[in-house]
Amino acid sequence: MTPQIGYGGDYNPEQWPREVWDDDYAALKLAGINTVTVGVFAWAHLQPAEDRYDFSTLDAIVARATAEGMRIVLATPSGAMPPWLAHKYPEACRVDFEGRRHVYGQRHNACPSSPDFRRLSVAMAGRLAERYGDNPAVVAWHVGNEYGGACWCPRCGEAFREWLGERYGSLDRLNDAWNTTFWSHTFTDWAEIQPPNMLSEHWRGPDHTAFQGITLDYKRFMSDALLGGFVAEKAAIREHSAHTPVTTNMMGLYQPIDYHRWAPHLDFASWDNYPPEDPSASRTAARMALAHRLMRGLRDGEPFWVMEQTPSVTASRNVNSVKRPGVLRLWSWQSVAHGADAVLYFQLRQSRGACEKYHGAVLDHAGRTDTRVFREVSEVGSEFARVGDAVLGARTPARVALLVDWDSWWAVEMSDGPNRNVRYMDVLTAYHRTLWQANASLDVVPVTADLSGYDVVVAPLLHMVKGDLAERVTAFVDAGGTFVTTALSGRVDEDDNAFLTDVPGPFASLLGLRVEETDAQQPDVVNPVTLFGTEYEGRHVFEVVIPDDAEVLGTYGADFYAGTPAVTRAARGRGSAWYVATLLDDAGVATVVRKALDEHGLVGPLADVPDVEVTERVSPDGTRHLFVLNHGEARTVECPVGGTNLLDGRALRAGDKVDLPPAAVLVIRQDQ
Amino acid sequence: MTPQIGYGGDYNPEQWPREVWDDDYAALKLAGINTVTVGVFAWAHLQPAEDRYDFSTLDAIVARATAEGMRIVLATPSGAMPPWLAHKYPEACRVDFEGRRHVYGQRHNACPSSPDFRRLSVAMAGRLAERYGDNPAVVAWHVGNEYGGACWCPRCGEAFREWLGERYGSLDRLNDAWNTTFWSHTFTDWAEIQPPNMLSEHWRGPDHTAFQGITLDYKRFMSDALLGGFVAEKAAIREHSAHTPVTTNMMGLYQPIDYHRWAPHLDFASWDNYPPEDPSASRTAARMALAHRLMRGLRDGEPFWVMEQTPSVTASRNVNSVKRPGVLRLWSWQSVAHGADAVLYFQLRQSRGACEKYHGAVLDHAGRTDTRVFREVSEVGSEFARVGDAVLGARTPARVALLVDWDSWWAVEMSDGPNRNVRYMDVLTAYHRTLWQANASLDVVPVTADLSGYDVVVAPLLHMVKGDLAERVTAFVDAGGTFVTTALSGRVDEDDNAFLTDVPGPFASLLGLRVEETDAQQPDVVNPVTLFGTEYEGRHVFEVVIPDDAEVLGTYGADFYAGTPAVTRAARGRGSAWYVATLLDDAGVATVVRKALDEHGLVGPLADVPDVEVTERVSPDGTRHLFVLNHGEARTVECPVGGTNLLDGRALRAGDKVDLPPAAVLVIRQDQ
Amino acid sequence: MTPQIGYGGDYNPEQWPREVWDDDYAALKLAGINTVTVGVFAWAHLQPAEDRYDFSTLDAIVARATAEGMRIVLATPSGAMPPWLAHKYPEACRVDFEGRRHVYGQRHNACPSSPDFRRLSVAMAGRLAERYGDNPAVVAWHVGNEYGGACWCPRCGEAFREWLGERYGSLDRLNDAWNTTFWSHTFTDWAEIQPPNMLSEHWRGPDHTAFQGITLDYKRFMSDALLGGFVAEKAAIREHSAHTPVTTNMMGLYQPIDYHRWAPHLDFASWDNYPPEDPSASRTAARMALAHRLMRGLRDGEPFWVMEQTPSVTASRNVNSVKRPGVLRLWSWQSVAHGADAVLYFQLRQSRGACEKYHGAVLDHAGRTDTRVFREVSEVGSEFARVGDAVLGARTPARVALLVDWDSWWAVEMSDGPNRNVRYMDVLTAYHRTLWQANASLDVVPVTADLSGYDVVVAPLLHMVKGDLAERVTAFVDAGGTFVTTALSGRVDEDDNAFLTDVPGPFASLLGLRVEETDAQQPDVVNPVTLFGTEYEGRHVFEVVIPDDAEVLGTYGADFYAGTPAVTRAARGRGSAWYVATLLDDAGVATVVRKALDEHGLVGPLADVPDVEVTERVSPDGTRHLFVLNHGEARTVECPVGGTNLLDGRALRAGDKVDLPPAAVLVIRQDQ
Repeated sequence: MTPQIGYGGDYNPEQWPREVWDDDYAALKLAGINTVTVGVFAWAHLQPAEDRYDFSTLDAIVARATAEGMRIVLATPSGAMPPWLAHKYPEACRVDFEGRRHVYGQRHNACPSSPDFRRLSVAMAGRLAERYGDNPAVVAWHVGNEYGGACWCPRCGEAFREWLGERYGSLDRLNDAWNTTFWSHTFTDWAEIQPPNMLSEHWRGPDHTAFQGITLDYKRFMSDALLGGFVAEKAAIREHSAHTPVTTNMMGLYQPIDYHRWAPHLDFASWDNYPPEDPSASRTAARMALAHRLMRGLRDGEPFWVMEQTPSVTASRNVNSVKRPGVLRLWSWQSVAHGADAVLYFQLRQSRGACEKYHGAVLDHAGRTDTRVFREVSEVGSEFARVGDAVLGARTPARVALLVDWDSWWAVEMSDGPNRNVRYMDVLTAYHRTLWQANASLDVVPVTADLSGYDVVVAPLLHMVKGDLAERVTAFVDAGGTFVTTALSGRVDEDDNAFLTDVPGPFASLLGLRVEETDAQQPDVVNPVTLFGTEYEGRHVFEVVIPDDAEVLGTYGADFYAGTPAVTRAARGRGSAWYVATLLDDAGVATVVRKALDEHGLVGPLADVPDVEVTERVSPDGTRHLFVLNHGEARTVECPVGGTNLLDGRALRAGDKVDLPPAAVLVIRQDQ
Repeated sequence: MTPQIGYGGDYNPEQWPREVWDDDYAALKLAGINTVTVGVFAWAHLQPAEDRYDFSTLDAIVARATAEGMRIVLATPSGAMPPWLAHKYPEACRVDFEGRRHVYGQRHNACPSSPDFRRLSVAMAGRLAERYGDNPAVVAWHVGNEYGGACWCPRCGEAFREWLGERYGSLDRLNDAWNTTFWSHTFTDWAEIQPPNMLSEHWRGPDHTAFQGITLDYKRFMSDALLGGFVAEKAAIREHSAHTPVTTNMMGLYQPIDYHRWAPHLDFASWDNYPPEDPSASRTAARMALAHRLMRGLRDGEPFWVMEQTPSVTASRNVNSVKRPGVLRLWSWQSVAHGADAVLYFQLRQSRGACEKYHGAVLDHAGRTDTRVFREVSEVGSEFARVGDAVLGARTPARVALLVDWDSWWAVEMSDGPNRNVRYMDVLTAYHRTLWQANASLDVVPVTADLSGYDVVVAPLLHMVKGDLAERVTAFVDAGGTFVTTALSGRVDEDDNAFLTDVPGPFASLLGLRVEETDAQQPDVVNPVTLFGTEYEGRHVFEVVIPDDAEVLGTYGADFYAGTPAVTRAARGRGSAWYVATLLDDAGVATVVRKALDEHGLVGPLADVPDVEVTERVSPDGTRHLFVLNHGEARTVECPVGGTNLLDGRALRAGDKVDLPPAAVLVIRQDQ
Repeated sequence: MTPQIGYGGDYNPEQWPREVWDDDYAALKLAGINTVTVGVFAWAHLQPAEDRYDFSTLDAIVARATAEGMRIVLATPSGAMPPWLAHKYPEACRVDFEGRRHVYGQRHNACPSSPDFRRLSVAMAGRLAERYGDNPAVVAWHVGNEYGGACWCPRCGEAFREWLGERYGSLDRLNDAWNTTFWSHTFTDWAEIQPPNMLSEHWRGPDHTAFQGITLDYKRFMSDALLGGFVAEKAAIREHSAHTPVTTNMMGLYQPIDYHRWAPHLDFASWDNYPPEDPSASRTAARMALAHRLMRGLRDGEPFWVMEQTPSVTASRNVNSVKRPGVLRLWSWQSVAHGADAVLYFQLRQSRGACEKYHGAVLDHAGRTDTRVFREVSEVGSEFARVGDAVLGARTPARVALLVDWDSWWAVEMSDGPNRNVRYMDVLTAYHRTLWQANASLDVVPVTADLSGYDVVVAPLLHMVKGDLAERVTAFVDAGGTFVTTALSGRVDEDDNAFLTDVPGPFASLLGLRVEETDAQQPDVVNPVTLFGTEYEGRHVFEVVIPDDAEVLGTYGADFYAGTPAVTRAARGRGSAWYVATLLDDAGVATVVRKALDEHGLVGPLADVPDVEVTERVSPDGTRHLFVLNHGEARTVECPVGGTNLLDGRALRAGDKVDLPPAAVLVIRQDQ
């Protein structure tokens, strides 16, 4: 196989008669497809009963795909258990947040603590690896599917207590972490601890808990418990397939699982790109860029895969619009622009029945190849072929980091007070959008990342401060870095207990201020913030700041704290530390972030052309490719570099006027 | 008893001391009441313990009603079980959609699969028939009450599996019907099949299912299971009462039960008319007309009964407004105008306590006969008496048919994709409203109806195409008929699996087009559709149509499919087939429907007078009565026919100017 | 201890290391704190296992507080059970309205019918009383905490049946009370009766029940069941502490518990003042005033305590704003102005973790005493010290009564029909607001109160008429009183069964009218009511009134009942009876209420100065203190009395111009 961008998607020939397979391959070749993901959800097919396996169909599927020259992504089927399993082992089904034991149905339905499910899923993974592990067409293992959800069954309760035992060692330490003297919760026996749900600590739903510490630990535990299934299947695969990389398809900005805890166990990252509908194309583009960067950041910048995207429509939304002409191509290239080495679809042939029968596919129910969708799929396939292996393995250098922390995400959204309308992802995406529009060279990394390679670190809602983070941030600033953080940062320690010091806790001295009060208001209440002479809108939370030696850059315009600081900057060592004490509107955020980037000259190319995205990938041999993507209206821009647009072979000089129609894509191999 | 329109209502003397009975009959006579429904919900009274019956009060009630010359509708009490039954047989209570076993409470609360409930309810029906079956005053049997709801208990699970066994014969066929290779659902043992609810295939509620086929079959099964109770009680009645007709009070446009599956088992149709509050009087009127027609269509056009309506207010709504002056009379006559031979109230005397104590009644808590409500009830009674038997048994000839299909209703609303904001009844009522305003001679019939007697067939959202429907529609068009259908029609087969052909499946060739894509948009997004030179609004779904030989009559005005077909018409044989590829606004629907009616000269009288409804009933002897009802403002109209208004004895010539004040009613016996 | 207004709050030193205690007392002294509430939620600390008690920490806490000269409010810890209790006795946990047994979590979580919980909580109360009952620093016992919620477990079912047995004596009487002939509900065995919840009589939630009588009785039962726990703990305390008063912290306008049933068992009333956020400061002030008056009315006008208020923010709301400068002082004085002899905070030191870690406190996480909040707390402390014992024990004479009735509150909100948008508290607060703005001398009392001491009685939504109420109201009017009531009054008897007479039942003849119909409309529908020449807005319900000898003062302007009475007044004996047949807007309510007050010259001082509240307390020796509180903008007013403002020592003559800045407070000791 010639190395080239992976292109293909989920393929379930076991759902179709053999004559359809011939049509499929004829069409897929037309479309430039080179990769098929097989075996997802095929468990009932592969193992019709606990004591009976039947690989005959999968053998034929793999043989045919191999014969057709496809690269095969081979999935373990554990994303959906077969009916016989649930029937024989009812405790393999989950207990939900309401405390109800489920019976058989849907998918992603297995309790991660069920020994029977574990045994059977791992056995299946091992058998698949044993049977297909030495087929060189198998280029990757795809374990399970979109891990997610949670279980609150008694067995998970037991596993939770074991997990807590390992984490805390003693009940005294656990009682301290959870602050159980509050409301008479001191646990005197491990057995007293219950999974936190609507029958115990919660009311009104998953975000309302009496004991944040218990719920936080359950989220951590459940993320680990699900990971346990992945790790066990991977180990079974490794017994027969020593080198083929193993991944699972993640879901980008997905709150329930801490992908940073998963990252070390993946051989490469992959994810499913289904952005929520948003009337703003550039907001959607920026959101996808954030997810791509988060996924890339899991494995320290290594290329990742887009394991799924839809060629046309989704089916699971209330309203499912079709991708407009050119959008499929634009988004496919955006994936590559951010570091994807493969872009796959769900799915190659449209389902006949059940809840995804209207989900888009490369081939529709009639199997036509003369549709708009098929034509656009083929165009992308043809461009990927043209570009060949040019960007494979290339990485994206970055001098700016955006910190993401699942613990802070969880903690800030389940906090009682000050304001439940503050949503972590709203604030994160607002700060990211301005970095995206600035075309800054950006990594999205965990709080444990080494900050020393960056010049600017942006950390909105860094609510929880764990380990040596404050020390590392301080060192980063001392060494010349610019640090930007916001309201509600520095509030709690790893156990979600308040720091018994001035707010913002370990950042107070770095930022040169203390927060005396935190006001909160309804979403329609605006407090105007004047910043560098311009007025912006602050909303939701308004911290009353007592500056120490921080410079006051912006002030509130209203309420009893009018005239007090809303934005500050403290010079520290060779660097600076910015604080934004309220949630600013987009323009306000942009002003702060641009100033921070300016301190290091890190505003990127075409930053002032709305909706035009520019990224770079640098190959191991030093070749640089610049991607220019237009998510908005037609624009004419100056080419930021000299080189050759690989998509049309045209030579471009830096400064050349280039027309960018809507959905335009340039892939410029830069002159050395 | 002189034959005359049945007039009366639910009457529960067992809830009142005997002295009240005297007052009741004095008042009811004043009001012209001739019919009483007794025994509804009287189970605890009739059978205070499993081994003890007590008919003494009912004997007295029946004797008194008989003595007063009333016609008696005798109800079986199975609509609400007594406390002792639930206490002794807890499994007679239902398990709800959340999987919770209910205990005693409310009504309509019995599991249809409970053998104990079945045994006891059937025994009761038999005893009632044995005791009162030869009383000639008993003119009808009323089994249970407003059958509805559903149960998801283990016994229903068993019954479901039996039902499936009969339907499919083999698991292979069932797996194919449900497309179970998707998500590893292949069933290998009947016992693995679970009732679909929140503990199995559903999330977010009854409309969101992972497997449409399973949920669809459960709806069919539950409709049949409830019917099973009716059929068993009817059989017990028939052992002692060979000829008295048996019915149950249905609920019109009621989604959970497929009344077309029930119709063959009813001796006549009857229903309860409680239209939802709607600020538009004519929308309400049209909605009631649709329900009347649907009920009339159950038994091939035979007269039906309105078993319940409120004389003034409901109590179960959040906001319960009183019927405005004249409305009771107008709606009562509307019932007759559409084929009712009886119009009854819930209830004759207002309840003293519990959840219907504020529900309206002919007699209020004080028993007054000098209230507005009592006066209006009496006026109707007096008019019914005046009209006598003139329209009894008369039928309504129709050349236009509107197709209603519960399977399509269920399927389109539980579909994942393209748009959950599409509600079957919204679209059906929109198409019906324009037929109603056109005063077309209209039947509302199932998809199995013989179409050969119609000139125009309108079939909105005919999502599912079952049996030989496509062939029959094609034959209808070939023979000169006009067929009108819409977006989302022709999508799935009887199992809710997509047709593996061009959309709209078996209608594609008849309509002369294929649908390549289906776009969906939020409710506030409009795509203007230009049709015969006028612009209308399309919403929700926008199918991208590739016409074959269909004539393009309307086109989209916006988006990437601007200029492509939105409304088409294909000439076929001697007829034509229309397709509306989006959901048009009312004016757009009216334009299409009027054109279709015009092809056959079927626009009815006074079609251009807003809110004036005209219907006709033709007696077996050929006498024709025209009903003219004004649901809007005062109008002066030209009398469409010559004849005599039975309500005031006035002679009218065709073309005479007639003043129609608000709520006016004419019942014109037409000159021969 | 010098007698003085109690000032302090909840204090949990057991949650902190000893060194923090020193800081606490140093700070609390600075702030003028003289009272600490200890022991709330300390159960797990005091009794780490069923067979092990440990009072060592509480001993130290009490000793230290005593040594510091604090008055101690000693709490029993039964508001939150320890984990071991729930683990050992799972049936001590509640079953919720959905029928789910809860496991350990949160607080206020014990089943009131659990014998184990009862035994253990009572034993604990007894031990505390035994140990600390003779400490003279202990000035009050505080049993449990914010009693509330409910349980629907089988044991509560049993207890409910026993309670019913005592209430009704026989099933016949119960069947009559519940009107069980409706829907076949006749109970033939006590064991058939189920707690009413989502598994029995309810749908859509707690307000929707098939049998109002059952649900109403369950509310009464549950209020009594919770009271049973209080009474039992109090009895255990009394064995060792004969004279120290016992209370519990109530919650003001709290629907689930009928505080009038509790009142006789309290030695003094106390409550927690957390008004819901309302953008209108004066609405909030009036609402708090209503709650203060309701609490004062529990014990016939005796002084009460504010047991909790927040010094700054809450944490449990979605949006938690800080109290603006001056508000803490204003509201603290408002409490005193309405009869509070103590004003306490939750809490003295801010929690470190769990769901109240962001709830405000006198001392924040850093323990600072230089914050705005601490300064304001200290200012109040200093003013309380200045005023000393001047108003302690003083009472508030009143000639106007507002009737509050939990049964009516419950009944009207769970009624099916006429309008679920009618909320008891909305109407009550609307009538109260105008009495509040009028600075009328007002009591808020139960329907059982002696009315003979009042001149005006206002009774909105007096839905249920119990006992001899109608007779007492009639006697009150005959004797010269003015009675004002509204739509939906006089509808049902004590069992929630309709009166079988004209509406409004026993008030019809007093009011000189009957209500023939009750129309209801959506919230946006207005029917204009012309009253004394001015037009006001009526909404929600519109009763059609047939006047007998009542004078018509206001009429509807629209709909078919335009021109008919909307407001009437009947002269009776030496008094008058007003009826408002719709829900008027605030201005309309004010017009009616002012007229009624005017009949007796009871409009109070400064009634026409918006947002300025005036109340009076009269000491046993006859000294009168007038409180003037400005909840709005700056105003200059004429001093209504001569005297001395205790807060600044300034002498004031009646008629003096006094500037009232926002949040101004005057406490004027009146010249004799």
